[in-house]
Amino acid sequence: MIYITRRERFSAAHRLFNPSLTDEENETIYGPCANPNWHGHNYILWVTIRGEINPDTGYVVDLKLMSRIIRDKVIVKLDHKNINVEVVFMKGQFISTENLAMGIWKELKPSMTDLGIELHSVKLQETENNSVEYFGN
Amino acid sequence: MIYITRRERFSAAHRLFNPSLTDEENETIYGPCANPNWHGHNYILWVTIRGEINPDTGYVVDLKLMSRIIRDKVIVKLDHKNINVEVVFMKGQFISTENLAMGIWKELKPSMTDLGIELHSVKLQETENNSVEYFGN
Amino acid sequence: MIYITRRERFSAAHRLFNPSLTDEENETIYGPCANPNWHGHNYILWVTIRGEINPDTGYVVDLKLMSRIIRDKVIVKLDHKNINVEVVFMKGQFISTENLAMGIWKELKPSMTDLGIELHSVKLQETENNSVEYFGN
Amino acid sequence: MIYITRRERFSAAHRLFNPSLTDEENETIYGPCANPNWHGHNYILWVTIRGEINPDTGYVVDLKLMSRIIRDKVIVKLDHKNINVEVVFMKGQFISTENLAMGIWKELKPSMTDLGIELHSVKLQETENNSVEYFGN
Amino acid sequence: MIYITRRERFSAAHRLFNPSLTDEENETIYGPCANPNWHGHNYILWVTIRGEINPDTGYVVDLKLMSRIIRDKVIVKLDHKNINVEVVFMKGQFISTENLAMGIWKELKPSMTDLGIELHSVKLQETENNSVEYFGN
Amino acid sequence: MIYITRRERFSAAHRLFNPSLTDEENETIYGPCANPNWHGHNYILWVTIRGEINPDTGYVVDLKLMSRIIRDKVIVKLDHKNINVEVVFMKGQFISTENLAMGIWKELKPSMTDLGIELHSVKLQETENNSVEYFGN
Repeated sequence: MIYITRRERFSAAHRLFNPSLTDEENETIYGPCANPNWHGHNYILWVTIRGEINPDTGYVVDLKLMSRIIRDKVIVKLDHKNINVEVVFMKGQFISTENLAMGIWKELKPSMTDLGIELHSVKLQETENNSVEYFGN
Repeated sequence: MIYITRRERFSAAHRLFNPSLTDEENETIYGPCANPNWHGHNYILWVTIRGEINPDTGYVVDLKLMSRIIRDKVIVKLDHKNINVEVVFMKGQFISTENLAMGIWKELKPSMTDLGIELHSVKLQETENNSVEYFGN
Repeated sequence: MIYITRRERFSAAHRLFNPSLTDEENETIYGPCANPNWHGHNYILWVTIRGEINPDTGYVVDLKLMSRIIRDKVIVKLDHKNINVEVVFMKGQFISTENLAMGIWKELKPSMTDLGIELHSVKLQETENNSVEYFGN
Repeated sequence: MIYITRRERFSAAHRLFNPSLTDEENETIYGPCANPNWHGHNYILWVTIRGEINPDTGYVVDLKLMSRIIRDKVIVKLDHKNINVEVVFMKGQFISTENLAMGIWKELKPSMTDLGIELHSVKLQETENNSVEYFGN
Repeated sequence: MIYITRRERFSAAHRLFNPSLTDEENETIYGPCANPNWHGHNYILWVTIRGEINPDTGYVVDLKLMSRIIRDKVIVKLDHKNINVEVVFMKGQFISTENLAMGIWKELKPSMTDLGIELHSVKLQETENNSVEYFGN
Repeated sequence: MIYITRRERFSAAHRLFNPSLTDEENETIYGPCANPNWHGHNYILWVTIRGEINPDTGYVVDLKLMSRIIRDKVIVKLDHKNINVEVVFMKGQFISTENLAMGIWKELKPSMTDLGIELHSVKLQETENNSVEYFGN
């Protein structure tokens, strides 16, 4: 069993707010992250899978394939987008880094499973000081 | 003469578009950067000043003072903001990294001059692959 | 269950030595790290907590609160200090990166527990080549 | 129990290919990584060990000793080498990052065990986007 | 006048040797870099151009275009190649980082000039400790 | 003419203070940097030289030689030292990053000149946010 990590990046806008609260209440909870005019980040995403090495190739998985799945299922939906407004798989959720990492996990999991790849973790960095990691449960 | 560089960071939303063009025309020119719903970045800013070392302190300038000027004049106006909508000193401009670096220079220059500090350059990184630097002319 | 990591930094002086040994014996064991005149580092600290996402906010924990605890309990006591001489929570210990990571864990744990936050790990980097991680037991 | 990580680096040439296949078949599987004229990387290696802190020194292990073992057993055999042609411990294997991480583990394990050091993981980065980690089983 | 920098990367094999000298003589001059079996690196390339901001777009140059030129003229010729054997524009030269940076400049200059872009510098990093920069004369 | 940069590192203790002032006055000027018990940093040093490429080797200068000069003249004197107390070439000076960069220049210049190497700049980073660069006048 060995672990393989692929790094990808996307730049997106978002805000943190609870639609049932006023702007003032949202700012009390979320501070500048609640700005109604949005702000944004360069997110860095590390997807880790695990598995046995295929004795016919030396690979657990072809990283070009793994990268393509991540791009098709996640990056094209997030990159240069407004996550609150345009990202279907995040609809109706608070766009925290926590929820976004879980949403990315759910987008990736079925395609990975179909290809016999075991998804291990999704790590998401919002700024150089803040990141989250999700292991699926 | 010695050069002193201070790094600061801000996260903001923006889009690139020409208001006299259609959305389609803007997307032809700017690609996904024209997204009407905005996107965003973690910008990294390096401000470089130059001067003689003060023989009474060993400093060209107190970096805490230099950092405070950058924060007051630039970072608080940009961080967690929508640059197109909320940043007065960028009003009516295309929010390219080029124009933003020049705008930051113009915001910093008078305060630096008042304190006898010679501003040398403003370097601004939009993504790990793209950056610009402006030397004032 | 999701994991949240906050990065903080501090710059401090220290030395490694056993007060019951001679300078020569200390240098044999610790090499240049035993220098009686001290040396220092820019330490990088990553604190990881874990928990369920609060459905009312989308957060496991407010990162501003988590950052404040780390600063109040750890960073202000260590930053620009001599760890051997001035840091009460390290008194009487060898100031190795290992012991320092454990000491930081012990400083953080009660405040985190009081707030219902589960501390997961403390990772401490002394140089770009050397780091340690402690999980509490 | 605490975890200690030492970073080391090496630059090497390699290619990925199956000697029982044609060049065309290899390029189908491995793409440009199959180039018969070789290509190369700056590999970054993180070796993590774990153990109890020695109460007489404050160390789990002397990092200079740990670094020396990694250099003697791994780095001198890989650095500025052609991994396919010159590295005895990788003979007859596909030179994937996965296999290389496992090979490095096997080279390090006996020396670490002899010194009472428990090897925890070998992490190997081939490019800034691709890395693998092996925990010994 | 503002300066725009685009970062690109390539991984390649090379060796340093003088074909009119023996292997022993080459090793005396170039050390392990002369290894006849090759070694390799992850090179990082920063290309800087300079110019006036186009008032109709806010750009000095479309970075997607600039990136495409760098990829077409340089990266596809170098990435996953053996620079000594396969790179036409380096034929007959010592494959030092110095010569490679100059070769990259010469490859880029005509296309940049054709597009009215003024090439300012080519910076090339071979390892995290070693880099060169060339300004065209 | 091409520019070659070598990166080296050292970890050291220092403090900023004026011996003719009281501790209180020093803390007013230098803040926590004046701590009489010292603090320290992981300094990063980039030394840049420039010259013509030697047509017999492809090198401006052998980087191993350049690294050895930097280590002999600068790093061994600074690494794991107290700069205020133990570094002869900084005696009687304020140990600011500015003065240290100039001191390093003066240590390197004669050896470089003796070898026909033209020193171009000394860049010194004290923290990830603060750095200085000196070009010799």
